[in-house]
Amino acid sequence: MRAAIFEGPRSITVGDRPDPVIEHQTDAVVRVVMGCVCGSDLWYYRGDSEHAVGSIGHEFIGVVEELGSEVTGVSVGDLVIAPFIISDGTCPHCQHGATVACVQGAIFGNGTIDGGQGEAVRVPLASGTLVRVPGSGHDDATLRSLLTLSDVMSTGHHAAVSAGVQRGDTVAVVGDGAVGLSAVLAASRLGAERVIALSRHADRQALATKFGATEIVSARGEEAEAAVLEMTGGVGVDAALECVGTGQAVSTAFAIARPGSTVGMVGVPHDVDLPFEPAFFRNIGWRGGPAPSRIYIPELMPDVLEGRVDPGLVLDYETGLDGIADAYSAMDERRAIKSLIRVGSV
Amino acid sequence: MRAAIFEGPRSITVGDRPDPVIEHQTDAVVRVVMGCVCGSDLWYYRGDSEHAVGSIGHEFIGVVEELGSEVTGVSVGDLVIAPFIISDGTCPHCQHGATVACVQGAIFGNGTIDGGQGEAVRVPLASGTLVRVPGSGHDDATLRSLLTLSDVMSTGHHAAVSAGVQRGDTVAVVGDGAVGLSAVLAASRLGAERVIALSRHADRQALATKFGATEIVSARGEEAEAAVLEMTGGVGVDAALECVGTGQAVSTAFAIARPGSTVGMVGVPHDVDLPFEPAFFRNIGWRGGPAPSRIYIPELMPDVLEGRVDPGLVLDYETGLDGIADAYSAMDERRAIKSLIRVGSV
Repeated sequence: MRAAIFEGPRSITVGDRPDPVIEHQTDAVVRVVMGCVCGSDLWYYRGDSEHAVGSIGHEFIGVVEELGSEVTGVSVGDLVIAPFIISDGTCPHCQHGATVACVQGAIFGNGTIDGGQGEAVRVPLASGTLVRVPGSGHDDATLRSLLTLSDVMSTGHHAAVSAGVQRGDTVAVVGDGAVGLSAVLAASRLGAERVIALSRHADRQALATKFGATEIVSARGEEAEAAVLEMTGGVGVDAALECVGTGQAVSTAFAIARPGSTVGMVGVPHDVDLPFEPAFFRNIGWRGGPAPSRIYIPELMPDVLEGRVDPGLVLDYETGLDGIADAYSAMDERRAIKSLIRVGSV
Repeated sequence: MRAAIFEGPRSITVGDRPDPVIEHQTDAVVRVVMGCVCGSDLWYYRGDSEHAVGSIGHEFIGVVEELGSEVTGVSVGDLVIAPFIISDGTCPHCQHGATVACVQGAIFGNGTIDGGQGEAVRVPLASGTLVRVPGSGHDDATLRSLLTLSDVMSTGHHAAVSAGVQRGDTVAVVGDGAVGLSAVLAASRLGAERVIALSRHADRQALATKFGATEIVSARGEEAEAAVLEMTGGVGVDAALECVGTGQAVSTAFAIARPGSTVGMVGVPHDVDLPFEPAFFRNIGWRGGPAPSRIYIPELMPDVLEGRVDPGLVLDYETGLDGIADAYSAMDERRAIKSLIRVGSV
């Protein structure tokens, strides 16, 4: 089959990989319908994090082509969403909802395990991993939104859940990438009364507003912190959602969080110097990390299927597998918020 | 009046301070019945943290002697508990329950504001700060337990609440000082099924067991971490309560917390290097900081008054104001878990 191959920084090509087959009776083979590029893939693309040569891409939806004899919960022909991490659903961590720490867990597209940026994927532990999409004939916009549940929308939701967003809250979202925009949507969906989006780009500000942002702060750093504090009467926000992972973004999130609140942290950290002691004395904690998408997909899917949320709007660039290199460079150069890779049909 | 005076590291004496009087109509003057020495006072005593020369001690109960005209909620003659921090009860932070961040807040015994280790205290913002104890004729054991609500028991409770302890949980408490022991009691009170106390001292192990610890780990560092992981089938605990504030204790707490859990951190941090990135990838967050005692006292007091908990047992050394120097050195030398200063009668 054809699939994207990570060959090194700034070198993503399309090459041949072995056709996936059932290796264990707990596997499924899924034909990919849509994949996409994650902001975290850019860390590899830019050479800021290590990635093995080989398969890449951990977000996809597809159709089940073949099943091992022990797989339950999905059938051949089903449209399925793959969370970005494989999980067995039965280990103690999965039972506690921490599927990202599954004792048998692994991320798709890690060089050896098939990636979502390819024609097909062998999905290990398919019963615990895959989520079946009910119904049929879903339109393209719905499919795009379902794809975001694989990672980006679940990650935005994880930021909001980790921060304990409650109905009526004032929330600020640091970061206007696809995750930040998804966090705006997640906070709004959970009933936040005010959602302040920190965003410097007009197109992203527009999407943030569409997703429920009630106010936009276009400054950064200390200027942004001062603006949010002023907008909240000097108090700070009930929930700050950190969706970047840089030191500056983390610092801003803690600076605008009100005492007693919890910062929701989902930006993959790079050289972050956490302001621990000042946060401690102000009673500002943090929760977050990689999202347990497998837990969130069933919770978020009805809102997608019934048209209440449209997270697929973050996918503002589209190509096929042949365009994979530009899918990455478009995001790297900020020509795209998030790149969709259209691979097959439902 | 006579009061403890911090004169510098390892120098706590009893001296004269001005008799407290009503300076603002929101003040109360409280005659101290009992005060005590906090583990955090030892940081000053040992010269590890700065403290102004003058008043010291932030935990006390006493009887209201005089009230400003604007004070409500307490009357002259009432037995009251003072949370360790003054709070107005009306600012946005207080309204959100973060009384330790009160915009008018200050800690008792900071050099200028009267301390609880003295005969009397001018309590600013008395309506927001003081909590009236209902009833009369409370016995000595009850008074001692009421005293702990001022700080140490509320702080142990804050560790458990911050970590989100639920009925049926497996909890581990790092630290067997008065706060750690209080955290054992708090976790048990909240319904934890297993409470693992990390304690190396036989007397403290005994009190931990009395407070509800179901298991004791007497090792420290990596050996303790391995023991707790083995006791939990390699999973880690549902809630790790960090009650020391040293780098090693923090490291242990994060190492034994299961993925997806929240570390409750109440040990005042000293040179802590938070293991942020590994915690992030394991979905282990933290919450905590100084306890909002003012919020917790009304919640905990009925259990003390009705005899369901006996947190006063952490006070295993007793003296009067004249013995203040030994009250500190007893704790410094670990002859005492926590020193009670008996000042007046109810």
